[in-house]
Amino acid sequence: MGLQALFDVLSLARFYSFWRAVMRAEIISCGTELLLGHITDTNATYLARSLATVGIDLFFVSQVGDNLKRMVETLKRAWERSDLIVMTGGLGPTEDDLTREAISTLLGETMQVDHELERTLRAHFHGSNRPMPERNVKQATLIPSAQALPNPVGTAPGWFVQKDGRILIAMPGVPREMYRMWEEEALPRLKPHLGATLFTRILRVYGMGESNVEEALGKLTTSTNPTVATYAKEDAVDVRISAKATTAEAAEKLVSEMELQARQVLGSHVFGIDNDTLASVVGGLLQARQQTLGVMESLTGGLLSSMITDVPTSSRHFIGGLVTYSTDLKVQMGVPRAVIEKYGVVSEETARAMAHAVRVQLGTSFGIGITGVAGPDPVDDNPVGTVYIAVEGPEGVATSMGPGWRTGRKDSKRLAALSALDLLRRTLEGVVTVQ
Amino acid sequence: MGLQALFDVLSLARFYSFWRAVMRAEIISCGTELLLGHITDTNATYLARSLATVGIDLFFVSQVGDNLKRMVETLKRAWERSDLIVMTGGLGPTEDDLTREAISTLLGETMQVDHELERTLRAHFHGSNRPMPERNVKQATLIPSAQALPNPVGTAPGWFVQKDGRILIAMPGVPREMYRMWEEEALPRLKPHLGATLFTRILRVYGMGESNVEEALGKLTTSTNPTVATYAKEDAVDVRISAKATTAEAAEKLVSEMELQARQVLGSHVFGIDNDTLASVVGGLLQARQQTLGVMESLTGGLLSSMITDVPTSSRHFIGGLVTYSTDLKVQMGVPRAVIEKYGVVSEETARAMAHAVRVQLGTSFGIGITGVAGPDPVDDNPVGTVYIAVEGPEGVATSMGPGWRTGRKDSKRLAALSALDLLRRTLEGVVTVQ
Repeated sequence: MGLQALFDVLSLARFYSFWRAVMRAEIISCGTELLLGHITDTNATYLARSLATVGIDLFFVSQVGDNLKRMVETLKRAWERSDLIVMTGGLGPTEDDLTREAISTLLGETMQVDHELERTLRAHFHGSNRPMPERNVKQATLIPSAQALPNPVGTAPGWFVQKDGRILIAMPGVPREMYRMWEEEALPRLKPHLGATLFTRILRVYGMGESNVEEALGKLTTSTNPTVATYAKEDAVDVRISAKATTAEAAEKLVSEMELQARQVLGSHVFGIDNDTLASVVGGLLQARQQTLGVMESLTGGLLSSMITDVPTSSRHFIGGLVTYSTDLKVQMGVPRAVIEKYGVVSEETARAMAHAVRVQLGTSFGIGITGVAGPDPVDDNPVGTVYIAVEGPEGVATSMGPGWRTGRKDSKRLAALSALDLLRRTLEGVVTVQ
Repeated sequence: MGLQALFDVLSLARFYSFWRAVMRAEIISCGTELLLGHITDTNATYLARSLATVGIDLFFVSQVGDNLKRMVETLKRAWERSDLIVMTGGLGPTEDDLTREAISTLLGETMQVDHELERTLRAHFHGSNRPMPERNVKQATLIPSAQALPNPVGTAPGWFVQKDGRILIAMPGVPREMYRMWEEEALPRLKPHLGATLFTRILRVYGMGESNVEEALGKLTTSTNPTVATYAKEDAVDVRISAKATTAEAAEKLVSEMELQARQVLGSHVFGIDNDTLASVVGGLLQARQQTLGVMESLTGGLLSSMITDVPTSSRHFIGGLVTYSTDLKVQMGVPRAVIEKYGVVSEETARAMAHAVRVQLGTSFGIGITGVAGPDPVDDNPVGTVYIAVEGPEGVATSMGPGWRTGRKDSKRLAALSALDLLRRTLEGVVTVQ
């Protein structure tokens, strides 16, 4: 066995023992209202995020209706394949609420009224001056393997079940009751069972499709710790880098090393991290230089201004926007009619004249002009999706031409507005040539 | 056996034969980003609702990560217990996208490139002037049991699989691609397998909360055929009326009778049906009268213009918008400085002056002015969420004042823009008093 092979075996052994320490979790959300589409399972999203931050791997989420047979079937499978099962819903007082019954059936244990819980429950009703319906007594039951999780904001206590090396947590489905119980009762009881901490950073990428980003990242995406994964979002491609370690600092260090490598291949396509948007990054750059912005938009019809003003501090750098949808309004706002007549309303020259006009009219450091064809009909000889963008600043003009997106009116608007913000960002960062 | 008992048995038999014809459905949502809590599974909610409206019973929803073994395990169980499996996600071009592989493994069939699909895919990339990464070819594969579901708004076609009396539908995870594919490709292919014909009409309601709409509808919501259900959407409350019958005509008649009753209680809050938006309804009314519109917006920062220009024919009635984010720009565009100084920039008087100024500057039939506080900080004594709206037209001015929405910047912008469109709609329909 050569040195490298020995090293590989040792790494594998270390990785394997690490993996053994990590819990395999599963979420089961109970309630027929989920399966009718009356509510969305945001509880699962909340729990999934929380599990990720404490380094617990979540492998499955299941929704099941208020039906004892199907609940037990789902629970049984979870009990076989997972170390931790987190259930929400089905703890109410009515006949439809069957989570306690399903757990008791699964474990072959009998539910019994816990007198301490019953006293607390009666006190809760007494405190709110309501008589307690007798059916509510079922909310005061336990089985031998279960500990109660107090619920000071509702009537249903949760269950924390430990048996055969597994943990099962059952909480109410009402989000605010569940959030509180999870944070204050369940997580503290789980912590002693955890081995590792997770740290995550997202790199936000513009100007490359998801498959191109993945191709550029190459074998970085096959790394197991940190993991590197790409996600296509409405406004960017996200590269999510997550690492696990015994301390938060060690996990962050692993992420930072991987981030350096990813940034090397993605270059200036990375415009920000985590919650950054193109508009917030551009806003930050302008405010740092005490510069201002005005836009004149036609194709995007106000969407560019709206993206810019989604940023809370935008009034510090954004003076205003002119949505010059008609040609006459473009002229009225300072675009020379001769330019439009010579080059056409959808042309690079008109985009340049729009950027210049708005910069002059509004007296801003930068002006953006956008013109194009949103559809449904072509304009002159320009197909639907054509877009011309110009950014004029103190040092000159940068332009870009859209590739003719054809995915529909709203997408054309969105992609054109994002591209305009990206062109301004590149201008501000000095990574694009101005003339 | 008495008459009543006989009747009960007959009803039960009829119900049972109906139930036999009903498909047992299951949803599988694929994507590690779901299990990390990065996104919420709203696709499942959408599909659950749609299945309910066509009378298909949904028994399970599962989320599974991008892992072939776990995907096949989940699929296998679904294949055993369900007649219809609807999958979303995992159809992208990257190595993480394993839905096709999982289905092929489940059914023991081999994926092969379909040359017609490959041609379409290459044409899609060619049309958007991008080179096609070779890995995308996997999006052009099929297995013998699968039919392709076209996806004109993205690169991933879906699969419609029929085998052994079961149907499996795989669609992309991107919501707008999935919605379109489900409505236009998958549902029509499912229809022949359903027992009855369903007809649905949506009444779109603005200016009432979902619970108020439900309260107003009263016992109409307990009707079983047609069913009447309310859904809170971003831009309206939808009242969905669905009826089943043996013919489409009979189902439509049932819906129309119920629609009359619903409209009686909801009155002028109903602004349209099905795919109507406030902007499309307003656009239609203006175009019918050959009238035009201009807007001056501050709080909404371009969003009102953007909503208006989301309507394909908007260039026929929308002249343009002025996003006067700074006070100086308001004055430059014709709002008297004296009005702003006397009443404040956030006031009914300033909204009126903005509506008047843009109507004069742009020479339009109608002008809308919006001013308010988007946050994060209050302006003068006005709390975050305050909004004043004015609509000036040939017959006078209508105004409304927002209730001080405090749900965040983007929500404040959205609600203010929608309220402005609704005020214009009411003005055009003559159901609001102008002064």
